[in-house]
Amino acid sequence: MNEIERLPILQVTEQGKSEAEATVVREFPLTIILNNQELATLLCSPTNPKYLAIGFLFSEGLLKSRDEIKKITVDEGRGLVQVETKEDKEAASELLSKPLIGSGGGRGLHYHRDAAPTSHTRINSQTKVSANEVFTLVKEFVHRSEVFKATGGVHSAALCDTQGIMVFNEDIGRHNAIDKVFGECILEDMPTDDHIIITSGRVSSEILLKIAKRNIPILISKSAPTNLGVRLADDLGITLIGFVRGKKMSVYTNSWRVVAQEHN
Amino acid sequence: MNEIERLPILQVTEQGKSEAEATVVREFPLTIILNNQELATLLCSPTNPKYLAIGFLFSEGLLKSRDEIKKITVDEGRGLVQVETKEDKEAASELLSKPLIGSGGGRGLHYHRDAAPTSHTRINSQTKVSANEVFTLVKEFVHRSEVFKATGGVHSAALCDTQGIMVFNEDIGRHNAIDKVFGECILEDMPTDDHIIITSGRVSSEILLKIAKRNIPILISKSAPTNLGVRLADDLGITLIGFVRGKKMSVYTNSWRVVAQEHN
Repeated sequence: MNEIERLPILQVTEQGKSEAEATVVREFPLTIILNNQELATLLCSPTNPKYLAIGFLFSEGLLKSRDEIKKITVDEGRGLVQVETKEDKEAASELLSKPLIGSGGGRGLHYHRDAAPTSHTRINSQTKVSANEVFTLVKEFVHRSEVFKATGGVHSAALCDTQGIMVFNEDIGRHNAIDKVFGECILEDMPTDDHIIITSGRVSSEILLKIAKRNIPILISKSAPTNLGVRLADDLGITLIGFVRGKKMSVYTNSWRVVAQEHN
Repeated sequence: MNEIERLPILQVTEQGKSEAEATVVREFPLTIILNNQELATLLCSPTNPKYLAIGFLFSEGLLKSRDEIKKITVDEGRGLVQVETKEDKEAASELLSKPLIGSGGGRGLHYHRDAAPTSHTRINSQTKVSANEVFTLVKEFVHRSEVFKATGGVHSAALCDTQGIMVFNEDIGRHNAIDKVFGECILEDMPTDDHIIITSGRVSSEILLKIAKRNIPILISKSAPTNLGVRLADDLGITLIGFVRGKKMSVYTNSWRVVAQEHN
């Protein structure tokens, strides 16, 4: 399905009105069903619904390993993804009640369930990245965000190593874009340990919890983090790089992973 | 509580590293309790928690009238707002299960519960706005978004008439900013019928359902709408104006409310 749609609009200036056409992003309700239990409906972009569903289930802690999955059925017409596991899961709707409603769409349920961020494992990866590698990765990332450029309404996320982008996804929700990247990694059996995530969106606490779960040591954002995002990155041992604009960036935490020179 | 926090960072360019200070927005977990029942925790900016809680409860359909409210207790230290109603409410957690998780943080539960957007009342307000009034309102709106300018991380929303801004709020979540505006209107007894909402954020379906509930005929955004946002605005009789930049704007729906000249 197309990510964008063209619509007739009226363009208005001080001089008067004229008919025109605008490109808008599509917003698609996708319902996720785990073992015949309807869990949630995500408002998302209509690309890669399978990756989004799997990424969401892992982020919410409802799936832990790819081996648990028996079958995935996607019904794009009805906006449904059904996931069946080999063994019965505990009642997932229990886990999803009393939601933590994030500033940007995600629900960091695990933050509250685990009580303290320090109950997450600290990330010890020795991966390093040079300033020039960051600038080059972000340049490639921006170049690939075509829908964003056309309509100003879509977020992007990518999994990279220091040499380039490996997995790239877009969505109207910044959490969804990251869940799609992780869903793709899980289903295509790509490791995420020691890798880098780039996101177009603001870095709030929920984003940090999501990437800590996949053992990501370095998070790069074109935007700004929140204070909780910075605190969590610090506690979780994640290198948080923000505000990458041209040849300048801000390193908020664990800056020892950012080195002056290429290290290969 | 402060909306922003200053933190030490490392600024990195091709030339090298230097220590610097960055301003980041604060992210604050606010738990909303209705009649001793914990409903949800919102990640939000720490300003006006009372307005956010009340706006959220109205947006979710859990409160219908200000007269229902018996008592509101705010505990900023613990991040709690407790709302008591005069009469018992139906079990609210039931209503909040099977969430619709929006692209940007809101959960348009009513969209699914009401099945079709047409079950909302169509807005018949005869309010009109001129192109110059829109440009002037947006200029004032941008001028007031100080935190946004400082950190690049906050959304704003405002209630206006054609002559100026009446209520203004900011939050890291675009849904929260709008809920704060409506919460303030409800508690301060300000009518919203025949008024205008301005938002800094993208206009998705959930935003339209929120403003339709308060009988708002005109929605102005600095950003782009989604296709579902446009379709809902059309169905609900709402004039949707987007991409207001300088002296140019796009009118997506119900353009009869946008007139060439001031009409007073």
